[in-house]
Amino acid sequence: MLTLPALIAHPGVVLAGATDLRPEALQRFSEEFGAPGYATLDELLQDETIDAVYIATPHDLHAVQTLAALRAGKHVLVEKPMATSVEDCLAMAGAAREAGLALIVGPSHGFDEQVRTAASLVASREFGQVRMVTALNFTDFMFRPRRPEELDPARGGGVVFSQAAHQIDVVRRLVGSPVTGIRAVTANWDSQRPSDGAYTALMTFEGGAAASLSYSGYAHYDSDELLGWISELGQTKDPELYGQARRQLARIGTEGEQSAKAARTYGGDGPRSAKAPHHEHFGFIIVSCEKADMKLLPTGIEIYENERRIFHPIAPPKVPRAAVLEEFVAAVAGRPTGLHDGQWGLETMACCRALIMSSSQGTDVDPRKIITDLQVENFK
Amino acid sequence: MLTLPALIAHPGVVLAGATDLRPEALQRFSEEFGAPGYATLDELLQDETIDAVYIATPHDLHAVQTLAALRAGKHVLVEKPMATSVEDCLAMAGAAREAGLALIVGPSHGFDEQVRTAASLVASREFGQVRMVTALNFTDFMFRPRRPEELDPARGGGVVFSQAAHQIDVVRRLVGSPVTGIRAVTANWDSQRPSDGAYTALMTFEGGAAASLSYSGYAHYDSDELLGWISELGQTKDPELYGQARRQLARIGTEGEQSAKAARTYGGDGPRSAKAPHHEHFGFIIVSCEKADMKLLPTGIEIYENERRIFHPIAPPKVPRAAVLEEFVAAVAGRPTGLHDGQWGLETMACCRALIMSSSQGTDVDPRKIITDLQVENFK
Ligand SMILES: NC(=O)c1ccc[n+]([C@@H]2O[C@H](COP(=O)([O-])OP(=O)(O)OC[C@H]3O[C@@H](n4cnc5c(N)ncnc54)[C@H](O)[C@@H]3O)[C@@H](O)[C@H]2O)c1
Ligand SMILES: NC(=O)c1ccc[n+]([C@@H]2O[C@H](COP(=O)([O-])OP(=O)(O)OC[C@H]3O[C@@H](n4cnc5c(N)ncnc54)[C@H](O)[C@@H]3O)[C@@H](O)[C@H]2O)c1
Repeated sequence: MLTLPALIAHPGVVLAGATDLRPEALQRFSEEFGAPGYATLDELLQDETIDAVYIATPHDLHAVQTLAALRAGKHVLVEKPMATSVEDCLAMAGAAREAGLALIVGPSHGFDEQVRTAASLVASREFGQVRMVTALNFTDFMFRPRRPEELDPARGGGVVFSQAAHQIDVVRRLVGSPVTGIRAVTANWDSQRPSDGAYTALMTFEGGAAASLSYSGYAHYDSDELLGWISELGQTKDPELYGQARRQLARIGTEGEQSAKAARTYGGDGPRSAKAPHHEHFGFIIVSCEKADMKLLPTGIEIYENERRIFHPIAPPKVPRAAVLEEFVAAVAGRPTGLHDGQWGLETMACCRALIMSSSQGTDVDPRKIITDLQVENFK
Repeated sequence: MLTLPALIAHPGVVLAGATDLRPEALQRFSEEFGAPGYATLDELLQDETIDAVYIATPHDLHAVQTLAALRAGKHVLVEKPMATSVEDCLAMAGAAREAGLALIVGPSHGFDEQVRTAASLVASREFGQVRMVTALNFTDFMFRPRRPEELDPARGGGVVFSQAAHQIDVVRRLVGSPVTGIRAVTANWDSQRPSDGAYTALMTFEGGAAASLSYSGYAHYDSDELLGWISELGQTKDPELYGQARRQLARIGTEGEQSAKAARTYGGDGPRSAKAPHHEHFGFIIVSCEKADMKLLPTGIEIYENERRIFHPIAPPKVPRAAVLEEFVAAVAGRPTGLHDGQWGLETMACCRALIMSSSQGTDVDPRKIITDLQVENFK
């Protein structure tokens, strides 16, 4: 639902087929796009008119479905998290590379326009080297309607895979050099939704930069107040609706939760969300370079230089999530324009894993080592 | 200058004598308070009418002057940082304990009214266990007029001793259990003021809570915007004065810097600062408990509970920094009311040292081990 407007709007994309477990979704798809709804992924993958697939199924299907699509010669745009294990990500990145097919994990907030703009400013060295990134996000993630596996740590549930995957992507994009270590603490503190719902992490980078990442999905403080009450999806938000997610969940109960979740999905009976007036964002982010700090907003970037503070506006989005489609379509056409590929996705997932390992071990964990250890293991 | 109003206002305090290197300060003191200005600390310490001393000299004098005062049987309130080495702090805390004299390090922002209030709410367990603290502060610390040693790392210069000492005190006060480890990165990124000017740190606590602390003193982004443009000292602030500290410093130059610094000191020709309408603060702070987040403001505490958000106002200060005087006077009278003593100060300094060590070693450092290692060393 969130990416569909970008799929529809991109001139290089034709929606040529779909598959889903729910027949009502397939029927609606055929009606809306005049293209076949396949009962299984295998059937869809046999359709030779289809060049590329966008996979937006539950986390634990990403790996097997991506590998099947790559085997069938299709390029893949797969939702974050890339998979639920680094092993799977390694296989996916390897399969895409060997087949010469595009594999991008997204949309992630690393594609947000203000992140891209700030990352170019960092890369230009106009303000000297980047030295510190401060990122925090306090949301109601844990209290939105969820499928059971979204809260099941064994199946990639909780905020690390779903949300740190965004925040790490953003921070990696901004700093622009490899992550050398992560020290983190994850937290699981609500017995009604027992899953990792918060974390705080310190990341170090080649070249000496460091980043602080904090996230809570427990629906208490809402850091959108630091972003002019613009929501993650770029909508204006009413601060008076405090507690809404938790209240709605309490009202509908556990059974209601499943239908509320389904209603929001394609072919469900929930409303399509209105066009967002602003860019998406992933919380409060300050990038500290030697000669300036930058604050990222969904409307532009505040640049705090030595002598002056200036606001660098960015044009409102024509279509949300257009950037990921642009990068994906270019990659499919064999002209990659960005740095997102299977390897990038693998590295972000290794960072998520490092974050979890650091919390249980109480030490820094180097995400590069997680990957090389697996490679050695595979080689044996 | 900052603590004088509290000294004057407290009914249990009589300003009975002073010492300073600058004769003009002594003369002004005698005129204003009708009490002797001593040319040396030794002379002051021989004054038997004096029970207690407040030491507000440069960092590297704190240890020797505190030890001298304790030897003379005086209680001591010493400015932060307690000293410039943990060894010295250990000696100071030990000397106070053995002599049965009060030793408090302060004022520190750990005494701020909203910190005290939030700490009691945490301790009451009304909102369950405290799990995460998120603290950030972006100031112009590095570009205020400074004595050379304030920027000299060898003499306790830079932001760790001067500013992390506050932030750590605040976070320790809020969490209320011992610090088990610190992982941090410090940064020195302005060649004009070569000293640690920023840091980011992850702290872990007994009981499982974690805190994220970020600080930049490089005069770029100003986090007072997150506190309703109330300054650290509780004054209202004009955001349009962006860049003032850096501009003033550039205008007056290196020589001017020394006289500008001196003018702000007691007996200097700078103006006394106006009474602050609000409490002091140390930046943006969110305390996450199991059932609520709290945001600390100089006007009160926003409490974000499961169902509702409420603002818990705190009465404006009658006198700034009154709390530290209350705690100190009670301790001098043998009725300690708070948790601040020499041992508390020692522990905060061990955290500052751990922060610096962690940055150079690239691992967690346990501040308790820094202290016990020194105790073993001393015992040999
Ligand atoms: N990038 C973002 O901002 C963002 C936002 C939300 C969700 N996501 C990601 O998208 C993915 C889906 O999440 P969601 O919230 O949309 O879930 P959802 O339950 O709303 O949608 C999942 C869809 O997959 C279908 N499905 C399930 N099993 C299938 C199978 N075997 N074959 C074909 N279809 C199958 C379901 O019928 C449903 O239509 C998750 O990985 C999530 O992390 C990303
Ligand atoms: N708690 C706070 O918020 C806060 C704020 C500012 C400063 N401080 C601390 O206060 C201390 C002083 O800092 P400052 O900025 O006021 O410095 P300052 O230079 O303004 O004041 C230092 C004073 O000590 C005097 N002095 C120097 N050597 C002396 C000696 N041998 N004997 C007697 N007097 C001597 C100086 O003449 C001067 O009056 C520092 O340790 C600093 O960290 C704390």
